[in-house]
This record gives sequence, structure tokens and C-alpha cells, in this order.
Amino acid sequence: MTAGMENSNAGAGRTIISIDAMGGDKGPATVVAGIAHSARKNPDIAFILHGPRETLEPLVAKRRHLAGRCEIRHATDIVKMEDKPSHVLRNGRETSMWSALESVRNGEATVCVSCGNTGALMLLSVVRLRKLTGIYRPAIAVLWPSNNPQRFNIMLDGGGDIRADAKDLMQYALMGTSYARNGFGLSRPRVGLLNVGTEEHKGRAELKEAHDLIAANAAHSDFEFVGFVEGRDLPGTVCDVIVTDGFTGNVALKTGEGIAGLISELLREAFRYSPLSRLASVLAYTSLRRLQKRIDPRRANGGVFLGLNGTVVKSHGAADSTGVSAAVKLAFELAQSGFTQKLAARVASATMLDQDGATDNSDNGDTA
Amino acid sequence: MTAGMENSNAGAGRTIISIDAMGGDKGPATVVAGIAHSARKNPDIAFILHGPRETLEPLVAKRRHLAGRCEIRHATDIVKMEDKPSHVLRNGRETSMWSALESVRNGEATVCVSCGNTGALMLLSVVRLRKLTGIYRPAIAVLWPSNNPQRFNIMLDGGGDIRADAKDLMQYALMGTSYARNGFGLSRPRVGLLNVGTEEHKGRAELKEAHDLIAANAAHSDFEFVGFVEGRDLPGTVCDVIVTDGFTGNVALKTGEGIAGLISELLREAFRYSPLSRLASVLAYTSLRRLQKRIDPRRANGGVFLGLNGTVVKSHGAADSTGVSAAVKLAFELAQSGFTQKLAARVASATMLDQDGATDNSDNGDTA
Repeated sequence: MTAGMENSNAGAGRTIISIDAMGGDKGPATVVAGIAHSARKNPDIAFILHGPRETLEPLVAKRRHLAGRCEIRHATDIVKMEDKPSHVLRNGRETSMWSALESVRNGEATVCVSCGNTGALMLLSVVRLRKLTGIYRPAIAVLWPSNNPQRFNIMLDGGGDIRADAKDLMQYALMGTSYARNGFGLSRPRVGLLNVGTEEHKGRAELKEAHDLIAANAAHSDFEFVGFVEGRDLPGTVCDVIVTDGFTGNVALKTGEGIAGLISELLREAFRYSPLSRLASVLAYTSLRRLQKRIDPRRANGGVFLGLNGTVVKSHGAADSTGVSAAVKLAFELAQSGFTQKLAARVASATMLDQDGATDNSDNGDTA
Repeated sequence: MTAGMENSNAGAGRTIISIDAMGGDKGPATVVAGIAHSARKNPDIAFILHGPRETLEPLVAKRRHLAGRCEIRHATDIVKMEDKPSHVLRNGRETSMWSALESVRNGEATVCVSCGNTGALMLLSVVRLRKLTGIYRPAIAVLWPSNNPQRFNIMLDGGGDIRADAKDLMQYALMGTSYARNGFGLSRPRVGLLNVGTEEHKGRAELKEAHDLIAANAAHSDFEFVGFVEGRDLPGTVCDVIVTDGFTGNVALKTGEGIAGLISELLREAFRYSPLSRLASVLAYTSLRRLQKRIDPRRANGGVFLGLNGTVVKSHGAADSTGVSAAVKLAFELAQSGFTQKLAARVASATMLDQDGATDNSDNGDTA
């Protein structure tokens, strides 16, 4: 599995992304179509593709943009959506997911992309890649649609860990801003800490503490801290990065998906209601499709595991080839920017800041 | 303030609702229009209306359906949206909100309706009406749009208290099912406990404990327990009542409002995009209005404070007269059914069940 590149020249001067070809709802053909699309658009990208060779070879052979830029790494087994993470950890050594992470672990690639089982991917990632020095809890950063110029907001933790104390939340702020800078080019991200609105309730002790800790790190880490925000600000415009624990974040994420789904359903019903409304739906077809793309959770692709030695991009299980290609693009941006190293440096310097109680620090000059 | 009904015959054989006329975004004229609408539809309803007499008298005089069915109770002061709850508690004796609760406290009315400051209303309600015997934490029950036959789901706690242990969550299940039965006529509500999806995360200790406690009370309290549910089930169809702590509930509620708001905005943009889509929006106008009504948070009116000696219906601050009238209708249903007494009996019997570890109990035969 770790035999390097002797069978291909996939890596020649290019940024290599490790791809788990299996485990998505739409199968490996969709994944291969997605990476072929990326290869056509970006000449600086190459792939190590993990899965059963007999399945993948014919798919890759059909795509001429992948010629010489995609090495297949044989893995017989597949992590299924219903597999328990602990089961995969014990028995998953022959899976494409395990193999894909192995390429990051041994340094062949800096980023891994998978459409598979989120829980298994998170657990395998933490165990195989290990946490970055100084990180207490890795987190999943997810995207919300918004009317901010970049058209989305970043929220973390989206469900990596149900617990988070004040220090974890402060680290999430640092990881989130690093991700916003390196993945999306936001120079000075605005960070908010998720809370409830009513005065009386702002008393949750760890949130007050996290508020002060994040505020103390804002200037040094070059982000703007907007303070407490509410659920409605997740898809709002008051900030770019929203920090919360993985329990609250996961509930909010799925609530948003649920409401978007219900509205889509009701919208379809509304347009079926009368002959006039049916005609209207034909006339508005293109506009409505565009709207659907903005709010479709499959498009808000690229949940990213932060805080590990290496970056793992979790594409939505139901991602189509456009979705896979979007995840690959994000993976490429992060790999190019040396994101993991910069994030590690940020966290190390903030941890010091916290321990020393200092309010400034000689900056290491990077843009993590 | 507690001078009774000697100046009017508002209460003659009718169910009396205490109304805080002030503090809503649209002012007392909207509130009076709302209760006049209710009075026209329902001959068995009467009101005690709280606020400055000089403001309210001309408004009431204009509505002939209110003649002889609406007593005005003078209160000089108004709770503003930005007032801190603790400030109102110390200094709010002359406010219409305080006066409106007083009518429930002294037994003139069984339900109070207010469009005012939620935090202040909750705090005043708890302090002035006091908790029902055996209730640890009162809760706010809110409505979500859904495709269930009743067209919405009930969630509690929507933000009454950021904490909730296993026993509180079990009481929320009892209060929520009582509310569903008496307010909306659901004979055997399905109850879900909000959690995150991934296997690994189902370990939050108080949620496991709450799961078992709710399950143990299901048969005796005549509801169906569907177990853990996710954020997407809040507007879904797998259950009718969703139980969670007030922190998570409030974040979810505001997230849902935020996503619905963003989609409305994007929908308007989509329809402005081209001449064809503008024409489509004209043709689909009626259908889209209907959709908007379904998802507009101002329509999902009637957040209800449960667990107090008396029921308090919190109408949305931005409620129009239709919204006020919907809140009054809900208040009437709850007052008619003797909801508070039934809820108290349920809680008392469940608390015993919990203490004795028994799994059955001679039923008191009511439908709380």
C-alpha cells in the first residue's frame, strides 16, 4: 500500500491528492468523473486513487485527462455507510478509506478526499493521522450558504466531538480562521461564538470563558471577533466563521438541512397547485435551479477535518461529480498553501499566549 | 389592578383571556384588531385588556364585537423589547405585562397572551405565577412547520432555561404531550429526544438517562416514544413533539428562522433575475404567498410557557392581527381544556413513578 510512485509518474511536479474512490452513494464512476473534471481544469493536480483495481482501471482508462496523473492503489474492501466506526477501526485495514488515509500518513499526499461514512472517516483520521501537537479536540468545519461575498460561512465543530471547553472553542476559532484564509482567501475573517440571545442566558460558564479567550487571541491571530452570535447568524452576514461545540453544531446543521428540505418540498407543492402556477414553474425553471444549487447541502460540499497531521476533506455521501470536483478543488487549495503547517504554528503560538497571559507575540509572519 | 370585574360584564359565562396590549412591534391597534377578530369568530370568549386606558379605550370602542366582552385594566408603563428582564422584575409593577400576569395569578383569567419581550415575560411569569408543584424547570414550547397532518411539530424547550438534566427532559416530554393533546387534539403524540446522529456520539450521559426515563413513562402517560431524533426531524414527520434543552432548542429555532429567511431572500432574487422569471413570479404569486405563510416564523405563533400555575402564550413580537388572533385561539383551547390542572396531575403521577421505580400506576382517567 505504501509502495510509493514507482508504477506511475502521477506526482511529477504536481500536488497530489489522495482519493477514496469507494463508499459514496453514487459509486466510483462518479468519483472518477469528478477527479477527471478537476484534472482537466487544473494541470498542477495529480491523484492516488484507492479502491479495487479491477473496478477503477476501466473507469480511469476512459478519461484521457487522467492519463499519467492518476495512480491506482489497490484496496479490496469498502466501508459501508451503515458500518460502525469502531468496527471499521478494528477490521478496516483492507478498505479504500484506510488506504487513502495511509497515503497522507506516509507523506505521499497532503490531503485526502472521501465521500464515505463520516463517523468512520473521522475516527480513522484521528487514529491514523493523529492530532496536531497542542490540539485537544479535532473538529469538522462545514459550510453554510450565506449572502456574504464568499457566498457561505464556515462553522466548526459540525459534529467531530460533542464536547468542547473554552480552550477547545478558542482553538476552533484559530483553526476556522486559518481554514478561511488558506482555503478561501479571506484575509481577516470575522469570527462569532454561537450562543442564545437572551441576556439571562449568556451565563453558560464555558461560553463566557471562551468569549474572553477568543477575544484575547483576535489581534495576535489577525481575525476580527464579533462576539456572541445566534442561530440565525449561521446563514447570516455578521461573521464568516462561527464557533460552537460539535453537539450544537451538528443539531444546527441538520436543522438547516431539514428546513431547506421542507421548503423545497413545499415549493414543489406550491408550483403544482394550479395551471397558472404550473406554467410559472416552467418559466422560472432556470432561476429555481440556480436557487436550489445555492441551498442544496450536496453542493455545500467539503466538510474538512481540522487539527490533524494532514487534512481530510469529507465530501457529501450523495455528491455528484460536480460535488467531488469542488471537494478536490478545496483539497488542492489547502495542500498548496501548506495549511497544516500554518495551522500548527498558529495553535502553538496561541497556546503560549494563553499560558503566559501575554497579549502580544512576535509574529511568525505567515498567513495561517 | 386586582379589582375584579365590577366595571364590566366581560366574564359572563365566557372563558376569559388576559391580554397584554402593549410591547408588540406593531402596537396596541394590532392587538385590539386581533382580539376583535377572535371575538367575532368565537362567542364564548372574553378579554381583560391591559395597558394605558386613554390609548385602549378608543381602539376598543371602534370594534363592535368587543362591546361588553372586553374590560380594560389600566397600566401606565410598557416593557420595551430592549429592557433587561431583571430590570423589569425590579421596576415593572406598573407595566401592562405585569398587570396581564396578575389577572392569571389572582384567578380572573386562566391564560395570558403577550407579544412583548420574551425574556422579561418568562422571568415575570416564573416569579409571579410560580412553578407547578413537582416541576423543576418550566419550558417554552414552540412550533415548527412540518408535513405532519397537524402541519407543525412542537419543540420544547425553545429557550426557557439553558440547562436540562434527564429528569427535566422527561418532564418536558410529559408537558409537551399534554400540550399536544389539549391544545391541538393529538390523541397519542409521538415524542422524540433530540440528539446527534453518529453512533459514537450517543454517549452524552444525561441523554441516555433521559432516553430511559422517557421510555419508562411512555405507556403510562399515553404517548409513543420514537427514541432519539436529529435536527432534520424538527421540521420532519417522524414525531410530533421534540424534547431538548433550552440552549440547543433556541439555537435550532433561530437557525431554522435564519435558513427560512435566507431562502426567501434568494427566492426573491431568483424571481427578479430575468424577464421570464419576473413573469413567472406574477403567475405564481398566490402559490408563493401560501408557501410564505407556511414557513413565516410570525405565523408559527404561540410559543407557550409550560410548567407554571397558569398558562402564558407568547405571541411573536412582530405578529400581525392574524397572528394575535391565532395566539388567542390557542389560549382559549388551553383554558377550555383545563390544561394546567391536567398537566400538574400528569407530572405528579410521573414523579411518583420515577421515585418508586414502578412501571405502572392506577390512572387518574383524564386526558392531560
